[in-house]
Amino acid sequence: MDKVRNQNAVISVLGLGRVGLPLATVFANSGFKVIGVDNNSDRLESIKKGECPFYDPQLQENLNACSSTGNLSTVLNFDKNVQADVIFITVGTPNTEKNNVDYSQLYSALQEVCQINLKDKIIIMRSTMPPKTTDDIIIPFIEFNSNLKAGIDFAIAVCPERILEGQAIKEIQELPEIIGGVNEISNNIAAELFKKINPQKDLLYLSPSGAELAKLFTNIFRYISFALSNEFAIWAEKYGLDASELIKIANYNYPRSNIPKPGFVGGPCLGKDGSFLDSNTTFSSIVSTAWKLNESIPQHIVNNIKNILGPIFNKKITVLGLSFKSGSDDLRDSPSVKLVNILESAGANVIIHDPYVKTTADLSTALNSPDVVILATNHKEFKNLASAIQQSGCKIIYDVWGMYDKNDFTDIDYFQFGNGS
Amino acid sequence: MDKVRNQNAVISVLGLGRVGLPLATVFANSGFKVIGVDNNSDRLESIKKGECPFYDPQLQENLNACSSTGNLSTVLNFDKNVQADVIFITVGTPNTEKNNVDYSQLYSALQEVCQINLKDKIIIMRSTMPPKTTDDIIIPFIEFNSNLKAGIDFAIAVCPERILEGQAIKEIQELPEIIGGVNEISNNIAAELFKKINPQKDLLYLSPSGAELAKLFTNIFRYISFALSNEFAIWAEKYGLDASELIKIANYNYPRSNIPKPGFVGGPCLGKDGSFLDSNTTFSSIVSTAWKLNESIPQHIVNNIKNILGPIFNKKITVLGLSFKSGSDDLRDSPSVKLVNILESAGANVIIHDPYVKTTADLSTALNSPDVVILATNHKEFKNLASAIQQSGCKIIYDVWGMYDKNDFTDIDYFQFGNGS
Repeated sequence: MDKVRNQNAVISVLGLGRVGLPLATVFANSGFKVIGVDNNSDRLESIKKGECPFYDPQLQENLNACSSTGNLSTVLNFDKNVQADVIFITVGTPNTEKNNVDYSQLYSALQEVCQINLKDKIIIMRSTMPPKTTDDIIIPFIEFNSNLKAGIDFAIAVCPERILEGQAIKEIQELPEIIGGVNEISNNIAAELFKKINPQKDLLYLSPSGAELAKLFTNIFRYISFALSNEFAIWAEKYGLDASELIKIANYNYPRSNIPKPGFVGGPCLGKDGSFLDSNTTFSSIVSTAWKLNESIPQHIVNNIKNILGPIFNKKITVLGLSFKSGSDDLRDSPSVKLVNILESAGANVIIHDPYVKTTADLSTALNSPDVVILATNHKEFKNLASAIQQSGCKIIYDVWGMYDKNDFTDIDYFQFGNGS
Repeated sequence: MDKVRNQNAVISVLGLGRVGLPLATVFANSGFKVIGVDNNSDRLESIKKGECPFYDPQLQENLNACSSTGNLSTVLNFDKNVQADVIFITVGTPNTEKNNVDYSQLYSALQEVCQINLKDKIIIMRSTMPPKTTDDIIIPFIEFNSNLKAGIDFAIAVCPERILEGQAIKEIQELPEIIGGVNEISNNIAAELFKKINPQKDLLYLSPSGAELAKLFTNIFRYISFALSNEFAIWAEKYGLDASELIKIANYNYPRSNIPKPGFVGGPCLGKDGSFLDSNTTFSSIVSTAWKLNESIPQHIVNNIKNILGPIFNKKITVLGLSFKSGSDDLRDSPSVKLVNILESAGANVIIHDPYVKTTADLSTALNSPDVVILATNHKEFKNLASAIQQSGCKIIYDVWGMYDKNDFTDIDYFQFGNGS
């Protein structure tokens, strides 16, 4: 505790992905010595050179600052000599292909953690986890392997990550922090730590399981809102109406309506987080129904295109955008990737262009006489492409995000997801 | 149009329920002559005496004002001599027992409307309806029966009601108005009319079907939010956690979370409005899953009570609150009513007390040695009942709304919906 207060605690962060790396740089730039740990050597090389291993301009700035202070170091593995007073676990908790939670990265991280002497240290769980994971797995695992008692010999708290991808640096500093410590001392140390980032930070206390579940509630709430908007889009199509217009008007100055815009819903968090609860129940939940709906949108769009064009075998189809969200290169659980797979399975000749994904085709190749253009990710770079698409010679444009307008095109059939008019 | 502008148009309102009567009084108090039409003679008698036929203090004030101006008159039926320039249709569109839309009140209203000469009149549809009802049923019906053409001989617009029950008077004046006219002149007359209530009113234009669907979007969005909160409650119970506490913390100063509190969801609008869309699809929608969940909560609570108490046959169970929402006497689609039915089917001896529902038992009868007390509606009158319940001698209190706290009671098992801790 004193070490945290005097800022001479050493912080280690296990997992230098989109959650861990921003966190490591924020603490390093707050004056702490930070040791980043990751078993991906390419990623470590990149970080050592001061290069962000994925697209995130704010994080790149933070990494530049770390380079000048030297506060951030990286290692491939913990060994007994590593001195770390605070240990953040920020590894991924994806789903397996069978839709069960994949704890393998978590177990690897825990094994690393148990390499060092945990006496009087604090472990902070920042990964998203099903409720009871810390109580039923993490703590027993560490106690068994270290012969120490949680809450007595070492402190432990669940402080779930709740950032928006691409806004990590800003949000780590500004968002309220949920602190789910096993006991008061764990809460107090975690609180002291986060106050070093921002003395005004809201601190909210729950039990470890409560913190795990509260995190899931937030993401599921968003996920369901998006799914409902997509259900509205399908109904609007059925009735020959424009969902985006109706949603805008339903929301306008109305105190009880905050419906999002329809579009693809994906990425490594929102859908998966619901399954952490859903896989623990036998009933058909709102979460599972919403998942079915969001996951069906790529197929729904291919069906719409087939209704217009007939079979798409051997058709040249250009997909604009592959990542799951605008301004990102993250392909994890991207509906665009699913769309491409469905198109290719149907025999289409698919060309992909994404300015954030280096392995994709360039724009001129993508717009070289396609039959169909699908706007699949709402990257800002695509906003002014209407005239380039008009000149590409395509017959159909399918706009998943409503970035364009029917009047932008002549002699091309323009379709917008959720707009049946 | 000129008549509306000069405020000498005569307005008629068909259906003097919780939608129509507040609207009639607002226009009457804005200086228009208003004729209210309703085929329920008891209701008309009550209105003639200046008494609101249901509980709504703001509306009662408005009725008092109408009595002094004489601007509001009522009739049981239209006849040919009635002069009405503006005709609002505000009748109910409930569901049949088979969950199809029940258009019978709407057809009766249309038959009334066709009694009078509609040339140069405007008809405003304010009832909640499935999309396309105005285009596919209302307009053809009126044109067939009147030999007039919509948009040419008479104007027609869909201006859906979006008020909160109990807040009607305030919200009719303040909420943005969606105007779905068949043509520009219909839009303009409707706009002029609503500007007479409040010159600053936001006016939002859509097609008739668009207006019908936008209304449904708003209510469904709320309904799904409530259902999701109830799903969270069930999960929290499973994990031994308190959903209300977690939701409060998940929402606190977090920009992407606005989860409501768990509790009963019912009433004549929210659930039914979703079925207007759902009954038009064959897939298992989010709406239908949410409906299943919200409708299951009364049974879930009875199951929880049985888990504690065993069979409830012949147990004396007091239900506090019968209406579907706090501060209301409205029993339509009330989950409390469903709860009472389930308890009675299981052989319990049920006593109901609701200060807003005159036919129920008084409080002292209700609290005379019950085995179980269920707080089923969150009327403000129940807030300070903890000590009276403590003294009633009951063994179990089940608090659906989290109005009380575990520490309010000694030697009584206290259970709260959504709180498994």
